[in-house]
Amino acid sequence: MPQYKAPLRDIQFVMHELLNAEQHYDKISAYAGTNRELIDGIIEAAADFCENELSPINHSGDQEGCHYEDGVVTTPKGFKEAYQKYIELGYPSLAVSAEHGGQGLPGSIGNAISELVGTANWSWGMYPGLSHGAIRTLEHHGNEQQKQVYLSKLVTGEWTGTMCLTEAHAGSDLGIIRTKAEPNEDGSYAITGQKIFISAGEHDMAENIVHIVLARLPGAPKGTKGISLFIVPKFNVNEDGSIGERNKVRCGSIEHKMGIHGNATCVMNFDSAKGFLIGPENRGLNCMFTFMNVARIGTAIQGLAAAEGSFQGALTYARDRLAMRSLTGPKMPEKEADPIIVHPAVRNMLLTQKAFAEGGRALVYLLSQFADIVEAGDNEEEKKYADNILSLLTPIAKAFLTETGYEAANHGVQVYGGHGFISEWGMEQIVRDTRIACLYEGTTEIQALDLLGRKVLQTQGALLKDFTKIIHKFCEANKDNAAMAEFIEPLTALNKEWGDLTMQIGMKAMQNPDEVGAAAVDYLYFSGYVTFAYLWARMALVAQEKLAGDTTETDFYNAKITTARFYFKKLLPRTRSHVEVIATGVESLMALDAEHFAF
Amino acid sequence: MPQYKAPLRDIQFVMHELLNAEQHYDKISAYAGTNRELIDGIIEAAADFCENELSPINHSGDQEGCHYEDGVVTTPKGFKEAYQKYIELGYPSLAVSAEHGGQGLPGSIGNAISELVGTANWSWGMYPGLSHGAIRTLEHHGNEQQKQVYLSKLVTGEWTGTMCLTEAHAGSDLGIIRTKAEPNEDGSYAITGQKIFISAGEHDMAENIVHIVLARLPGAPKGTKGISLFIVPKFNVNEDGSIGERNKVRCGSIEHKMGIHGNATCVMNFDSAKGFLIGPENRGLNCMFTFMNVARIGTAIQGLAAAEGSFQGALTYARDRLAMRSLTGPKMPEKEADPIIVHPAVRNMLLTQKAFAEGGRALVYLLSQFADIVEAGDNEEEKKYADNILSLLTPIAKAFLTETGYEAANHGVQVYGGHGFISEWGMEQIVRDTRIACLYEGTTEIQALDLLGRKVLQTQGALLKDFTKIIHKFCEANKDNAAMAEFIEPLTALNKEWGDLTMQIGMKAMQNPDEVGAAAVDYLYFSGYVTFAYLWARMALVAQEKLAGDTTETDFYNAKITTARFYFKKLLPRTRSHVEVIATGVESLMALDAEHFAF
Repeated sequence: MPQYKAPLRDIQFVMHELLNAEQHYDKISAYAGTNRELIDGIIEAAADFCENELSPINHSGDQEGCHYEDGVVTTPKGFKEAYQKYIELGYPSLAVSAEHGGQGLPGSIGNAISELVGTANWSWGMYPGLSHGAIRTLEHHGNEQQKQVYLSKLVTGEWTGTMCLTEAHAGSDLGIIRTKAEPNEDGSYAITGQKIFISAGEHDMAENIVHIVLARLPGAPKGTKGISLFIVPKFNVNEDGSIGERNKVRCGSIEHKMGIHGNATCVMNFDSAKGFLIGPENRGLNCMFTFMNVARIGTAIQGLAAAEGSFQGALTYARDRLAMRSLTGPKMPEKEADPIIVHPAVRNMLLTQKAFAEGGRALVYLLSQFADIVEAGDNEEEKKYADNILSLLTPIAKAFLTETGYEAANHGVQVYGGHGFISEWGMEQIVRDTRIACLYEGTTEIQALDLLGRKVLQTQGALLKDFTKIIHKFCEANKDNAAMAEFIEPLTALNKEWGDLTMQIGMKAMQNPDEVGAAAVDYLYFSGYVTFAYLWARMALVAQEKLAGDTTETDFYNAKITTARFYFKKLLPRTRSHVEVIATGVESLMALDAEHFAF
Repeated sequence: MPQYKAPLRDIQFVMHELLNAEQHYDKISAYAGTNRELIDGIIEAAADFCENELSPINHSGDQEGCHYEDGVVTTPKGFKEAYQKYIELGYPSLAVSAEHGGQGLPGSIGNAISELVGTANWSWGMYPGLSHGAIRTLEHHGNEQQKQVYLSKLVTGEWTGTMCLTEAHAGSDLGIIRTKAEPNEDGSYAITGQKIFISAGEHDMAENIVHIVLARLPGAPKGTKGISLFIVPKFNVNEDGSIGERNKVRCGSIEHKMGIHGNATCVMNFDSAKGFLIGPENRGLNCMFTFMNVARIGTAIQGLAAAEGSFQGALTYARDRLAMRSLTGPKMPEKEADPIIVHPAVRNMLLTQKAFAEGGRALVYLLSQFADIVEAGDNEEEKKYADNILSLLTPIAKAFLTETGYEAANHGVQVYGGHGFISEWGMEQIVRDTRIACLYEGTTEIQALDLLGRKVLQTQGALLKDFTKIIHKFCEANKDNAAMAEFIEPLTALNKEWGDLTMQIGMKAMQNPDEVGAAAVDYLYFSGYVTFAYLWARMALVAQEKLAGDTTETDFYNAKITTARFYFKKLLPRTRSHVEVIATGVESLMALDAEHFAF
């Protein structure tokens, strides 16, 4: 089991050198003065907690799993205690506004901590992670009383939250959910139905659980426009805020699943449970979007965490493990074989993990800065612009980071050879844990449709243009920098191709709407690779500038340039296949009748 | 849990219509007269056994796993009983020559059965599967007495076999193994050392286990040229063939691993265990090659099995599961949503699985025919030619089928959405079970080096030319068939490109041997996609010919053509990225010092 080590130097690089966190915060009055010393101090403290409290219970949590008995869920050994420390250290309230009892720090710092927590122990991190979504929903859509009763307890971490959307027959298609909410005389609602896949739906870590539940009011319109959002507490709350009697919501079972064994994935049965409407009737999905966008960035972080964690594990092994000789002659003739890091194929896997981890970090942090502006920006124009970029990049980040994270996790197993398949080495757990990331909070295919259909084509390309303009400006500004030509030239071409490809698909989609579905996943990958190319080019530029100045960290900055070069040479060419596949259109996908797939 | 259904129609198609099994067998005097009725009867009986005996204990075997206590391994419920039936039905002896007590049927029929067994229950299938390798080793390299004592019992299935190669520090690099063999006075050897990852090393299914063990004689040369091969029985065998006293080989523990839980992966401790030399001293690896080639085709079959099994599961679900409406309007307006098979992205995953499964089947069966000739061909020239093709195609089949099988298994999970992550649906088990296939019997990276380094470049391209000539002839023969142009044109171009690419890499490798390692994996994928393109083009041609004739199965043959078209449009373009990546060479892989991968 590799011990997790927080990548502090790289976090600092992205936060301060690439994205100028201090200047970013100073432009938002709510966050002004959030300086580097403060930020680094917070991150270092969180790193310490993650390395020493969460990482040690990651493998044991996987092996032990959660236990269910008669409605009660017991989390793995150490989970509860770690959670107590976590709330004592004040993490749940970190990025919550002071108005709601929080510390008022920017969400982007919260997301940086989420990466650390998630890499150290994803299953554990989901317990506070789900609360975070509930907090955001209540901050934005709860009424004063709801904020006072529920939000305040979520913010301290005394209670945790969930997100009850999915039903056995309804996952991606929330329009067909059946859980119903019938008005009680006291203004509350009786919620009845069954929800599945409820992460952290029941556990022993907090005294109460606040379920945020999608349900239908009597006579509500069919489909997504007839869904409302409710608070359903595990225990009802007395007038004085104390815990009251048990509400009629009960965990019916927990799922046996591929990974995230330390997290309880619950079937939740609501049997006339008392619930309280959040926001307007039938507008539940709109309110839920706040939750879902947070969750999607959170899931993108799972991809980043998988890439980082598996990279750390694989790198340790590749330096230690001796097998075969380098094809160019022994590199460690005194040993019985060379360490496998001498072999190009092993390096290819390590560099792929590294490029995905560091590129993913850059994307998550960039997105988080836009999210800061959406959350607390001082003027509407800036907020609108940031929201547009965020809307475009969220499905890319969610799908591309989770898919590349899964690929990276598989490279981790592969670098270990047969040992990668064995539990004690920890590599296969990352594969199992992160496989869910490509599924929950909207599958890769759903993200792809969201990107190409809703975000790009439905806006006539407006959101895309906002972003390609940023890339264009960057390319223009650096076109005369000879040392950057190896990055700027291909990036310029790809950025233009992104628009052309969009036009091409848009034209075809006017003839046949299925062209969107046929192109969407490849389009998403293309978009992801170009977005990473932009970020890697920017990182290379920062490194060049530092090297041109007065730095003692030449190895660090040279490694950035080398990794950028690797990315452009070895990963970016994958765009070629996606472009070619998109060009072949929908026909070969739709030709076969459903009954003729097998005989 | 989807119930496994053997794809009999497709097996018949590949065996009889694509590869003309009867003619093939008639050309080999040992197999002459193996007619369609016989073949189909055997396959159907095996299908029945696999569907009704093995498939039902696949998921339970995964959940229960093997249990270890004090050297004793208990297999999951039902495994032992199924094995008894399997040997009663005579399967272990099916493809063993009559000379050695077998039924003398061709290995290609044995491989077809392996697919059925492996798709129904891979973990179970490994127990007899490992025996098969031991049988082949003893058939080819054992002396008369060894054949009489050990081979005869392996052939009946009364005893099982293993393959003890790996040590904790030595997997891919067998040259550094340490297990030693010291001569005893009676001509036997005392084997001492520890082997790990020994599949079926200990279990409760048979009364004795025949370990085939790699070890070093005293004073043997270093490296791979100082390794010898030994038989080490679990129980020594008395003169009269009865089971004697326990030998000093013992299972120390079983591994906890990602998948194949039903198969015992053992640590085997040899403590002066009595062993018997197989073949000449220090030539153990050469003797082992027989075993390894069998094992590599066997592992390729695991990839095919994963593709077929996950395709069956995903197809069932995609037809049943309702979610969202088709973008071109409701297809089942009477239901609350359309079945997900209407969505292009879902179809893309299903067709990818289908193209990999059916293409993989064609490749395995084709290889198996060449293996039949190598095994029992009537003249040396034909045998040599078949061996060349087999040598070239084995690493392609092993790596490409296992990687595409793993991809297909992941599509299976993805089609199920969140349900794919849940054990009871069976999709995640396929992912976990098949992940090992890319690792054992030589990782993908090792296969890639074997292909590009040993098989292609070291022969100056001779083996490759043998195969590209076959493709070339096929293209030439069909170049005027307008209906085939969509396949023949790209195949002709790719076939030529295969040679050009090889030249390009060969030239660079003369400057820097690491260019081979840098290009190998992409080269292997390229080779795999082209090989599949050839097979899919051939399948499309057969289908066209059948449709031009008098057939009632127009849907079946049209589906073949449609799937071929899908393959050419949607999967074959992946070659573009591999070609482009190969062109970028080794530089960006080797630039980073091992100590600068992380800071």
